[in-house]
Amino acid sequence: MNEPFDAVDVIRAKRDGHELSNEQIDWVIQAYTRGIVAEEQMSALAMAIFLNGMDDREISRWTKAMIASGKRMDFKSLGKPTADKHSTGGVGDKITLPLAPLVAVFGVSVPQLSGRGLGHTGGTLDKLESIPGWKANLDEEKIMQMLGSGSGAVICAAGAELAPADKKLYALRDITGTVDCIPLIASSIMSKKIAEGTSSLVLDVKVGSGAFMKDRKMAAELARKMVTLGKDANVNTVALLTDMNTPLGLTVGNALEVRESIEVLAGGGPRDVVELTVALAREMLAGVGKTDVDVEAALKDGRAMDVWNQMIEEQGGDPHTTLPTAPARHTLVAQEDGYLTRLDALKVGVASWRLGAGRARKEDRVSPVAGIELHAKPGERIIAGAPLLTLHAEDESKFDRALESLQGAVEIESTKPELAQSVILERID
Amino acid sequence: MNEPFDAVDVIRAKRDGHELSNEQIDWVIQAYTRGIVAEEQMSALAMAIFLNGMDDREISRWTKAMIASGKRMDFKSLGKPTADKHSTGGVGDKITLPLAPLVAVFGVSVPQLSGRGLGHTGGTLDKLESIPGWKANLDEEKIMQMLGSGSGAVICAAGAELAPADKKLYALRDITGTVDCIPLIASSIMSKKIAEGTSSLVLDVKVGSGAFMKDRKMAAELARKMVTLGKDANVNTVALLTDMNTPLGLTVGNALEVRESIEVLAGGGPRDVVELTVALAREMLAGVGKTDVDVEAALKDGRAMDVWNQMIEEQGGDPHTTLPTAPARHTLVAQEDGYLTRLDALKVGVASWRLGAGRARKEDRVSPVAGIELHAKPGERIIAGAPLLTLHAEDESKFDRALESLQGAVEIESTKPELAQSVILERID
Repeated sequence: MNEPFDAVDVIRAKRDGHELSNEQIDWVIQAYTRGIVAEEQMSALAMAIFLNGMDDREISRWTKAMIASGKRMDFKSLGKPTADKHSTGGVGDKITLPLAPLVAVFGVSVPQLSGRGLGHTGGTLDKLESIPGWKANLDEEKIMQMLGSGSGAVICAAGAELAPADKKLYALRDITGTVDCIPLIASSIMSKKIAEGTSSLVLDVKVGSGAFMKDRKMAAELARKMVTLGKDANVNTVALLTDMNTPLGLTVGNALEVRESIEVLAGGGPRDVVELTVALAREMLAGVGKTDVDVEAALKDGRAMDVWNQMIEEQGGDPHTTLPTAPARHTLVAQEDGYLTRLDALKVGVASWRLGAGRARKEDRVSPVAGIELHAKPGERIIAGAPLLTLHAEDESKFDRALESLQGAVEIESTKPELAQSVILERID
Repeated sequence: MNEPFDAVDVIRAKRDGHELSNEQIDWVIQAYTRGIVAEEQMSALAMAIFLNGMDDREISRWTKAMIASGKRMDFKSLGKPTADKHSTGGVGDKITLPLAPLVAVFGVSVPQLSGRGLGHTGGTLDKLESIPGWKANLDEEKIMQMLGSGSGAVICAAGAELAPADKKLYALRDITGTVDCIPLIASSIMSKKIAEGTSSLVLDVKVGSGAFMKDRKMAAELARKMVTLGKDANVNTVALLTDMNTPLGLTVGNALEVRESIEVLAGGGPRDVVELTVALAREMLAGVGKTDVDVEAALKDGRAMDVWNQMIEEQGGDPHTTLPTAPARHTLVAQEDGYLTRLDALKVGVASWRLGAGRARKEDRVSPVAGIELHAKPGERIIAGAPLLTLHAEDESKFDRALESLQGAVEIESTKPELAQSVILERID
């Protein structure tokens, strides 16, 4: 045994409320990556961190150690700035799809290394895979070519060589009840984003029933930690806290969300999706010094759509193909007149997942066509008999359980609710 | 998936400070035994229990669930009472060796299912294995024959079928920093002891530097929890809190401790070993209603030694053989005149372990001859140049690291210390 530390000593230190030293953190992450620290030991450490916390120095070192566990990407050779966005995940959150081509319009590289969905929030790759022929897995050469001489934007799967410690730890946390822990969330997200080698980063931290973070104070704390981690690593980082009590836009599901994204790229689309896309694009561009640009014009005049079409083609998809649609549909109508006061994001997300849009286990297949279409958003006047939601599925057998999870999702009241005008709650830099 | 619970939900409940229901506890222990709950999940749960605790109902149910994970032994067919002892482990604690035959003298079955040592406290089986030919592994038929028509006492390895959940969990706790946790210790010890089917049980709970429990209040709490668990399971249970700041007796090591045990069985031996052996024997006998017996006489007149000789022979050993001795020895002498005020049990235990008497990993071999002989105990007058300790090992290369861990183990001062007269601190029933 020539290891400098013993896993049990490191676990005990955190268990007893002590700070871990830089050397302990470097070792434990590295030894875990090598398989010297066993899964059950990392699991006990993760629970001790969950319950006893880590301070800013520890989180920063933990992040650096996860970055050091793998390789880093480097886009400097492209000779243009790189901007990246990360969302903590929400229901109907398809923003990456219109956003990446929109930002690329202005001569900025946008490498969006994305994931697949697990649970009630969908994954960006799952959405794009509803486009026949589109490929998520690209090698580094292809990515560099797309960013350099191609469309300038790429949305693809992250390679296994980026922060492998984070990949192992993320899978472990998922099965050991150690997911919702700010130090572990912040270091997980930021280790991947910093290893991706971007020069600027915008974080979309969701708050509300359909988000990971239900509580605004916790979300703000997470955002602040991530912004600090980014800046410490010389990544120009800013975070927007955005509302996730209601699904974003009017569609939840894979092909359904691609269709809505194309509407936005065509200069239309739901108000909240456009607002957030434009706000995030402005932040990404400002992060690389481009403040004097007319982002909305690039949606209206078709430039963003041109980049989208090229990007989809470069990854094997036909942007002009007809997207698949669901053979089975079921529409819920309003039982009374009034104002729609609530449309719960979590319940809609779970229902969409049960319809087949999401997966329970990594190996599950997702349905491209399943999901939910919203016919109204909170604040709107509703007349009894008007459609509220349409469920989409591959077959009718999915409807019963989806309807169960929609119990209490919709509230209609007689007085017009006071609602915030913007989905953006706060900017943290 | 037709499991009634999800492991992550159970972990989260304890993580968030909730009580686990009886049904959750039954399921998690059973599913862990079956391999449905993974090691890394149980590890996270154990850390959550470590940090958030379990109340008396939870500990009781957890114990019952571990008993139910395997089979139970039953000695009723023997037609005589059964008495058992458990020690939480200390340095130089060889009490089981003279105690089991001593109690059997009075017509009581004494099935001592014992373990091997790990770390600085030795294991009873390791000690007896220094007797050439002696076998620790017996089948149930052999155990019943020894208890019924044989010596009446047996010290052997516990079978794998008793509380298998505890065996898995114990090995897991050892590598995940979740050992020193009262709910898990109490349920681990008591599940094994209750499954062993004894009618009375005496617990020797050690307190002090060389014990698992350094703190008397914690030790008393552990003792009370275990007594309650025993009584709830209709086992007549009592606990003695005993001092473990100084090693028990004058020897630490395998063959060395067997030799000292034989001295006690011959009516001699160190005062503290005799005191504790007699006190525990009286408690075990009282636990099965035998209060009017002269325990000390059975040591003086050779009856206990007769049972010992028969018991060792029945397990393949020759009680009259010469025990192995160490080829390499090194004696530490006093540097000054004065009174011995402290002889630290932990440091002596670690030194003995480093000399080869203990193991770092389960698969390590232990040396039968390695260990430490004490030439004086705290309170005694010491003259400069007099021997204090003799180190025994298979070769001289072991001495350096052992001497390192003896730094500060011995204190000599000019005034006679005030020391307790008894190793027994408290009786808890």
